[in-house]
Amino acid sequence: MSIFTGLSAFPLTPFQNDAVDEHAYIGLIQRLSVAKVDSITTLGSTGSYAYLTPNERARVAGLAVEHAGETPVFVGVGALRTSQILTNIDHAEQAGAAGVLLAPMSYQPLTDDDVFELFRTVTEHSELPVIVYDNPGTTHFTFSIDLYARVARLPGIASIKIPGVPSDPAAARAHVSAVRAAVPKHVTIGVSGDAFAATGLNAGCDAWYSVIGGIVPAAALAITRAAQEGRAADAAAESELLAPLWRLFTEFGGSLRVVAAIAEHLGLAPHESLPLPILGLTEARRARIAEVVNELRLDR
Amino acid sequence: MSIFTGLSAFPLTPFQNDAVDEHAYIGLIQRLSVAKVDSITTLGSTGSYAYLTPNERARVAGLAVEHAGETPVFVGVGALRTSQILTNIDHAEQAGAAGVLLAPMSYQPLTDDDVFELFRTVTEHSELPVIVYDNPGTTHFTFSIDLYARVARLPGIASIKIPGVPSDPAAARAHVSAVRAAVPKHVTIGVSGDAFAATGLNAGCDAWYSVIGGIVPAAALAITRAAQEGRAADAAAESELLAPLWRLFTEFGGSLRVVAAIAEHLGLAPHESLPLPILGLTEARRARIAEVVNELRLDR
Repeated sequence: MSIFTGLSAFPLTPFQNDAVDEHAYIGLIQRLSVAKVDSITTLGSTGSYAYLTPNERARVAGLAVEHAGETPVFVGVGALRTSQILTNIDHAEQAGAAGVLLAPMSYQPLTDDDVFELFRTVTEHSELPVIVYDNPGTTHFTFSIDLYARVARLPGIASIKIPGVPSDPAAARAHVSAVRAAVPKHVTIGVSGDAFAATGLNAGCDAWYSVIGGIVPAAALAITRAAQEGRAADAAAESELLAPLWRLFTEFGGSLRVVAAIAEHLGLAPHESLPLPILGLTEARRARIAEVVNELRLDR
Repeated sequence: MSIFTGLSAFPLTPFQNDAVDEHAYIGLIQRLSVAKVDSITTLGSTGSYAYLTPNERARVAGLAVEHAGETPVFVGVGALRTSQILTNIDHAEQAGAAGVLLAPMSYQPLTDDDVFELFRTVTEHSELPVIVYDNPGTTHFTFSIDLYARVARLPGIASIKIPGVPSDPAAARAHVSAVRAAVPKHVTIGVSGDAFAATGLNAGCDAWYSVIGGIVPAAALAITRAAQEGRAADAAAESELLAPLWRLFTEFGGSLRVVAAIAEHLGLAPHESLPLPILGLTEARRARIAEVVNELRLDR
């Protein structure tokens, strides 16, 4: 089976005083390895890749591989400039990554041709398998299914990380089937947007690129294994149990600040662990998160 | 009179083989100094600041000040991480900048509090006057007038660069007046979005932060001086002369690729001068740009 299937957990990269807290980071990686997630994707959006220097990123990639045990490690290599991406790929390769994750970050709006040429350049540069990272909420670039198809035909493309699927199961299945029909068979499709994961997996996605997998892997594995075993209703029920968490993601403006607050609450990251200018949540919001963590027994 | 008034010209930073073409860049700076623009803002969006390394940015800022003669130079210092912004500010200060331009670049969506704290940190860090750069098309952050007011009260804020104003002159005047009423008197208001510049200046903006000013300064000065001298109809007419250019900005997805193609056509920048992954325009589009340049006599 492809390593680009199942639960890929996205750990935070905790900061303290504007430097990576390596001790906390190693703890997060070891926790994922022990939990037996299927893969670890370090330096995803949840890992704040866009905020780290090339040297910090090389160091973090190396620590992940060193402490992940047998778990394959994928490394986010996105940057605004193509040459910086190639440098990040070289560093990921030197670190022993099993693959790279690449989002078309933008400052100036990108065209489809810009993005295709970027992936062409990357797949020519390195033998490492590439996960195409479609995350319009942060990159402000939206892939069409036609562009998925163009990019996925490049040699070396291993997987596509799609944003959340429609919440209606039939509509989700239709969407995943349309993506599937457009890309070669060996290219896996992974859902993101944690609230949509059960629906996406039940609709035929091969993988879940998961934010909560990076911090509460047991809860994410319960959803993933149910879906993989064909227990669609169980997967949906496990996801529904986490509805209070999904609501906080929506209410508090996204998953990142919430999972950082959970990590801080659980003692897995230092206080105010996000890179500035991203402020941590207010004390009132942290109190509501602590309630949800306790209610859902996410500290198990 | 404040140096944050009149025409501030935004030069390109031309690349060749993934390195800054310093010879071409110096030529662009000298051209602006000879044309007697009121200020030069280097490393704005048009100067591809987001794509350069901190060292490249320090070098470019130094070259600008060295070759600008008496013209004040402002330097774009934006970055995704606060500490990187502070480093860029230190470099701008060492280069002899007269001010800095700061856009709240984002990857994760920013809150108003994030952005306020960022500007507070920056104004505490340095004595250099700060231009607040509101450019939602690239930063994906939108300032409210309330946030303009909060930020503009910080000591050291010199100017606000607002995006295009409404095309209706009365609506433009109402908008500029609303911004004016919200900020301290010493804070100037500069319009951007070149197609809106005449309307913005006629509506009471103090400055034009200008893309075309960086490459065809004579045309931009004609609009600016007419507006400054109270000849509103002349300013509007000068802008209307350039309508074919404004249409290309819209049709070709923004100003950057168009002004780069103009610079390349005029021999002021090497071929394919933008940083990858941003591709230059197709030959067919370049031919249309050449026609407009000739028709409008922009090569004068």
